[in-house]
Amino acid sequence: MTDIAPTAFLPSLETDLLAVDTLRFLAADMVEAAQSGHPGMPMGAAPMAWTLWSRHLRHDPADPEWADRDRFVLSAGHGSALLYGLLHLFGYDLPIEELRRFRQLGSRTPGHPEFGVTPGVECTTGPLGQGLAMAVGMALAERMTAARYPEITGHRTYAIVGDGCLMEGVSHEVASFAGHLGLGGLIVLWDDNEITIDGAVGRSCGDDQVARFAAYGWHTDVVADGTDIEAIDAALTRAGSDPRPSFLAVRTVIGHGAPGVAGTSKVHGSPLGAERLAQAKQRAGWSLPPFAVPAEVAATCAVLAAIGGAEHAKWRNGFEAFGAAEPKRAAEFGRAGARLLPAGALAALGAVAAASPRATRQSSQACLDALRSAMPELVGGSADLAGSTGTVGGEVVRRDDFTTSAIAFGIREFGMAAILNGMSLHGGFRVFGATFLVFADYLRPALRLSALMGQPVIYVLTHDSVAVGEDGPTHQPVEQVESLRMIPGVRVLRPADDAETALAWQLALTRVDGPTALILSRQSLPQLDMACDGDGARIAGSDAATHHHSPAARALGAPAARALGAPVGARESRAGGTRRIDIVATGSEVALAVAVRNQLWADGYDVRVVSALDRARFTPDPSAHTISIEAGSTAGWAGSVDLAIGIDEFGHSGPGDEVLAHFGFTEAAVRERIRAYLDGAP
Amino acid sequence: MTDIAPTAFLPSLETDLLAVDTLRFLAADMVEAAQSGHPGMPMGAAPMAWTLWSRHLRHDPADPEWADRDRFVLSAGHGSALLYGLLHLFGYDLPIEELRRFRQLGSRTPGHPEFGVTPGVECTTGPLGQGLAMAVGMALAERMTAARYPEITGHRTYAIVGDGCLMEGVSHEVASFAGHLGLGGLIVLWDDNEITIDGAVGRSCGDDQVARFAAYGWHTDVVADGTDIEAIDAALTRAGSDPRPSFLAVRTVIGHGAPGVAGTSKVHGSPLGAERLAQAKQRAGWSLPPFAVPAEVAATCAVLAAIGGAEHAKWRNGFEAFGAAEPKRAAEFGRAGARLLPAGALAALGAVAAASPRATRQSSQACLDALRSAMPELVGGSADLAGSTGTVGGEVVRRDDFTTSAIAFGIREFGMAAILNGMSLHGGFRVFGATFLVFADYLRPALRLSALMGQPVIYVLTHDSVAVGEDGPTHQPVEQVESLRMIPGVRVLRPADDAETALAWQLALTRVDGPTALILSRQSLPQLDMACDGDGARIAGSDAATHHHSPAARALGAPAARALGAPVGARESRAGGTRRIDIVATGSEVALAVAVRNQLWADGYDVRVVSALDRARFTPDPSAHTISIEAGSTAGWAGSVDLAIGIDEFGHSGPGDEVLAHFGFTEAAVRERIRAYLDGAP
Repeated sequence: MTDIAPTAFLPSLETDLLAVDTLRFLAADMVEAAQSGHPGMPMGAAPMAWTLWSRHLRHDPADPEWADRDRFVLSAGHGSALLYGLLHLFGYDLPIEELRRFRQLGSRTPGHPEFGVTPGVECTTGPLGQGLAMAVGMALAERMTAARYPEITGHRTYAIVGDGCLMEGVSHEVASFAGHLGLGGLIVLWDDNEITIDGAVGRSCGDDQVARFAAYGWHTDVVADGTDIEAIDAALTRAGSDPRPSFLAVRTVIGHGAPGVAGTSKVHGSPLGAERLAQAKQRAGWSLPPFAVPAEVAATCAVLAAIGGAEHAKWRNGFEAFGAAEPKRAAEFGRAGARLLPAGALAALGAVAAASPRATRQSSQACLDALRSAMPELVGGSADLAGSTGTVGGEVVRRDDFTTSAIAFGIREFGMAAILNGMSLHGGFRVFGATFLVFADYLRPALRLSALMGQPVIYVLTHDSVAVGEDGPTHQPVEQVESLRMIPGVRVLRPADDAETALAWQLALTRVDGPTALILSRQSLPQLDMACDGDGARIAGSDAATHHHSPAARALGAPAARALGAPVGARESRAGGTRRIDIVATGSEVALAVAVRNQLWADGYDVRVVSALDRARFTPDPSAHTISIEAGSTAGWAGSVDLAIGIDEFGHSGPGDEVLAHFGFTEAAVRERIRAYLDGAP
Repeated sequence: MTDIAPTAFLPSLETDLLAVDTLRFLAADMVEAAQSGHPGMPMGAAPMAWTLWSRHLRHDPADPEWADRDRFVLSAGHGSALLYGLLHLFGYDLPIEELRRFRQLGSRTPGHPEFGVTPGVECTTGPLGQGLAMAVGMALAERMTAARYPEITGHRTYAIVGDGCLMEGVSHEVASFAGHLGLGGLIVLWDDNEITIDGAVGRSCGDDQVARFAAYGWHTDVVADGTDIEAIDAALTRAGSDPRPSFLAVRTVIGHGAPGVAGTSKVHGSPLGAERLAQAKQRAGWSLPPFAVPAEVAATCAVLAAIGGAEHAKWRNGFEAFGAAEPKRAAEFGRAGARLLPAGALAALGAVAAASPRATRQSSQACLDALRSAMPELVGGSADLAGSTGTVGGEVVRRDDFTTSAIAFGIREFGMAAILNGMSLHGGFRVFGATFLVFADYLRPALRLSALMGQPVIYVLTHDSVAVGEDGPTHQPVEQVESLRMIPGVRVLRPADDAETALAWQLALTRVDGPTALILSRQSLPQLDMACDGDGARIAGSDAATHHHSPAARALGAPAARALGAPVGARESRAGGTRRIDIVATGSEVALAVAVRNQLWADGYDVRVVSALDRARFTPDPSAHTISIEAGSTAGWAGSVDLAIGIDEFGHSGPGDEVLAHFGFTEAAVRERIRAYLDGAP
């Protein structure tokens, strides 16, 4: 199915031009009604968008979820009005009333395209460069799907990018990656309007973009007149038959047709104003009222949509034949597409256990090794740290072999994360990406989008504290764990040993509505013997059971959160005795907490250790002194515990245990701090 | 002084080769002693480093602070052992004992080069790509210095970069920027060893890097044999006379001379091992003990260092002549280099005040306008948002005119911040950069380095809450303010009106040991009448004075922190009455707090409003109910106040006031929440 038929219906040039003006004025009307938005980009890019949608894009507006549809990404997301116009014209569930409510609270037409809000919007764009990056991820997912299911796969990924997208660093990372893998089927149109918000592109950039993409190994082409529909069409056709990813530079005029401001930054992000808009319509011979769609355009779009529906039906027939011939593979395709875990996956995780100490990054490698055969849709890799992060996965994907499941993302953290978003949005895969925790800062903008789009991307972040040691403060995270916990919708799990690492992987895999960050140690940690409640908190100590649940024994789905009591503030002493001490720790500090507890037991204290695998699920017990130990920022602990032992300054280069000792992370120093606290406590 | 004389002393080729081996084995010995580190890069790149340092670099090891020295940046910071070897050989204050203590706690030879720790280290490198970016910043600062002080300025900036640097997105942003401005004098050597941590570069990257840099407008050259000192020298000489920035691809073998592992990733980041190191030395005919420097090499380096000292003396003479002829300009040069504020700067800030409401981004623009003539060393710009962020500054720097003070960084947030770090490190300028607060995520890795290096870069971050409105959740910060507060050493200031914005600029300018983030509103805010303590907290309300200090009236330097009392937990009610209510708010929420306070006054409550311009300086008063209002994450407030009113989810597209109302940021809703809290409070 690699042979994609172009749409079989060619509107007249007259209709084409009418449709282009329809898109232009719908966008301008939307911005005018909202008195907010970006008319310039839609007015300049309407011809390329129309040519693409009317002559090349293979989609079924009646079913935006069709697995083998072409993907379209408006990377220049500020041009959202253009996308909403297209979706409306082609019959997606986006009635004209929604266009009238552009940028209003609760509408399906937000200021920038948002995945999940508007049918047909493939991803959330607006943070520049990331749309292009997600398109690369979608194109990679297509190739990997085609390698597994060639009978039912063969679609393309299109993106329209602006100058901003191309200036952003992430464009380099992902264009280089796409060129390396030869992602044919990825076709990028550059809206080359020579204008940015502040003025001419030439004020800040002189790149030869075509030469640049050629240096990445892309097919490149230039359309000198971005209103020339036949030229755009021809370039798209040539691109479609090239085995490389394609970069088409399409020369446009921002705000095309807006008198006095076309071709200037004035038309980038402000309404035209009633008078100028009226003049533009007059010039274009446009006499319809605002938000009107000419009948001829509507009829044409209906035909094109029907053709898309027919293509889809044809594909569905093919899929049914495939299902009849290959029921197991077809079921697998459906299961992975629905993000259902295979039966054996969690059982495989349950088998992960070592008796001897090891780093949780190694525990995580064991989880991945166990999952690999059980869960073929689990794919991913690292930003050139496979060995270090415990994400070695056999042969990596190559331009001549997309059947393997390991991806060498290169030294491109941000690109990796944005590509993972694109792969997750494409569907059919569960994806993970790895780097050192400190470099989560490099990929943070994409992780935020994972959360905003509700994509279950799994971030494997290792070398999780100053215990990294000799590489020094640039490689030692301090504030990173806490700063990840702060992004809405991100689940942060910091496991203490094999059992918790397997549980963390289980929690990550069973989550389908958002990203999970696994925070893993570089250094070796002992295997602990602790009771486990299956949802992110374990208890060890005087009043905890000592048996150990294997994660696989747990039911799939989220058990109730653990509620340990009311918030700090309403404390009372235990009747007739010393108040209990709860030491809450995460990851590598749990073993330290256990060691300190043993000493405090010897000192006669009533102490319990809680492992807060998921800190968000931890609530202090008001009847206890609560002391936290985490080798990182105390900002998230300080207010809610009585004593927060952490690190609020940058680290130092030196052997890991010496650096930990420098910051007081030894049994003796922690015990002393706790005793000193207790001496002064009420 | 643009004509730079090459060093006048040419060692014999034999000495060159001996020096190269000295660098190789010093590095290998350091890694071996530490049993940690990266021997591969130094062994491969030693010839280019030696050629550069012995034949081109103009520096005075006796004075690493010489303003007109050439800068050398090891962007591939994991090769730190190479840099330490160079610094030691050339007589910087880095004795051999320090090399023996490589990567040990408290040594001057940390795992990655750290600015401020080792004399002669120009910047902290390790986070890949940022060294190249800082080199671009240094080269820009040189050009801008030369435009102001041509008589005493003419140095070059050299960088050695690895494949990792070139894969990182920031390399695109800054190389494009350098090409655009034609930053001749910037010479980048690419250690082209075809190896990354995980294996061959070809596993993840196929870029034609030379073509890529040519597309940015750089001079490019190739040295086919990276051990060929004459070829490297010739390429450096050609680069030195080219008006464009230069990119020299130098083909090397990682771990050169290490038997069995040279040319592989095995030698990237692990000690060679005693046996293999012995074999390598034997092969090279090296019979000296570890850490030994051949006398001939030492003598040669002493001569080269003396030549550098003589160059410096010559420059000093020139500077004295300049000072005699132009005492005022010479004094200005010295003042700015010492980061001393000019007399009029703070007075200029004191004049910033509007009676009518305006956004704090506009207040900030007024501050910049006032500072421009008073403080010529204040330079900066935005990532293509000058108008929106209030950082319009007249004509921007162009390749044919570096005399102006405004910089168009393009849509390159990360590159901008890293370039600012380089400019600040270069010295002679106070620098600022602006973008929308939500895109602080894009530049976060460079902001972390500002803090780690103690550089007083000023970040102007506007559109600081969901009040951004129609642009939607991708453009509405939620967790950003709190996540910036968490980076050690970053001062975060969120002013409420003109007076506080001027104070925030004053605090930012008077800080010389670290970065400051100014968090500014998009929306208009009233001018408040509040007492002000000059150090980040203002008080309005029943028991606060109503007079208003102008920032200019304050003494330079940090007044004592405001201490409002003991931490939450040891509360007591006021004798004989209702407990007082403290509403603490920041930025745009201060006016809301004041409005709510007025209503609560009418309801009979005893209420005070505190504006926590700098939240870090705020401590709750235990005798009061403390309620925080900030239109963002509550994570940093929740534990320490009684009621934290904030936003812990992503925003929505819609008019700003409607979005604020959706999240309960109206007088009525806040008043209701406070009353409900008080009804249930102890």
